[in-house]
Amino acid sequence: MADPIEFWFDFSSPYGYFGSQRIEQVAKAHNREVRWRPFLLGVLFQTTGQSPLLSQPLRGPYSARDMARTARLYGIPFRLPEPFPFGSVAAARFFYWLDERDGAAAIAFAKAVYARAFVEGKAVSSPEETAGVASGVGHDRSDTLAALQEPELKQRLKAINDEAVAKGVFGSPYFIVDGEPFWGHDRLDQIDRWLATGGW
Amino acid sequence: MADPIEFWFDFSSPYGYFGSQRIEQVAKAHNREVRWRPFLLGVLFQTTGQSPLLSQPLRGPYSARDMARTARLYGIPFRLPEPFPFGSVAAARFFYWLDERDGAAAIAFAKAVYARAFVEGKAVSSPEETAGVASGVGHDRSDTLAALQEPELKQRLKAINDEAVAKGVFGSPYFIVDGEPFWGHDRLDQIDRWLATGGW
Repeated sequence: MADPIEFWFDFSSPYGYFGSQRIEQVAKAHNREVRWRPFLLGVLFQTTGQSPLLSQPLRGPYSARDMARTARLYGIPFRLPEPFPFGSVAAARFFYWLDERDGAAAIAFAKAVYARAFVEGKAVSSPEETAGVASGVGHDRSDTLAALQEPELKQRLKAINDEAVAKGVFGSPYFIVDGEPFWGHDRLDQIDRWLATGGW
Repeated sequence: MADPIEFWFDFSSPYGYFGSQRIEQVAKAHNREVRWRPFLLGVLFQTTGQSPLLSQPLRGPYSARDMARTARLYGIPFRLPEPFPFGSVAAARFFYWLDERDGAAAIAFAKAVYARAFVEGKAVSSPEETAGVASGVGHDRSDTLAALQEPELKQRLKAINDEAVAKGVFGSPYFIVDGEPFWGHDRLDQIDRWLATGGW
């Protein structure tokens, strides 16, 4: 099987959530796997000088409209969590804790975080909120809270964010297909075509 | 005939150029006209706090790649002008000078500016460069230079930019279809569908 598609996203990113709803289908159609890579967009913003989308004048109100319209177009259930954006460091850390033990469990947890955030509209920010989501997909609440205390886990996520910067990731979602980068949920049609043709 | 599609763009915007290559076909398919509205993105950036795309870390190199890839995908001839970005105030002013006299001539001039910039790869920035492009579509060079001196023309473009801000425009291209805003060349498929269905 060819290399997996790298899927970089922030748990607090609506467009990342939209990407998560569609990338597996695109990948499957071309016999590819998806490598889920949550990272912290806020940390990347320190490199790019960007700021959270919805807080920007003009662009913020437009984006809220575009998100709702995009969700309706693809039939994706969607609401903005409150508060938004939320700090996603605990969810990202626990993802990698799981990922080292059971890749499928990590992906199931990632989907559960996104569902809590963008279907139920609740922030998944604190260790407690993260443990709550984890318990819904079979992980003991106190085990999750204990895992989140592990100092190696902090380092692991820091290394992941450094890897993101090194690979040029600056937004969410950001896909890498055989070395070719695609930024944005709205590039999924191009990704589908790239996978079909090997590029153009 | 229903209202025209408003097409807001900056003459120095590659994605605006891509939009110019495709919007007329989309509009025509739905029996709509296109209202071309050049504006100065740099002035808008003062409101939104954005900076030119290609000068941004990470996002800049990605965007250069995305532009070339998008052009290849749609079969649009493309090169980046040197220097880039270029100040497009003279071209925008002369567009509105023409637009008050002959709308079709203004559109022909706009297409000629984009061709000079993104097919030939030359900046269209100074009054002389602007008059050069204008002469290629039948306007006397010295008439153009004289027109560009008219103080009312400055005010006209200032009013246009104020209108852009009032309408929420913050990027190029930016389309408004029956009051519904769409930002980006990559929303043209959605625009096509919006026109076909009346929205979703």
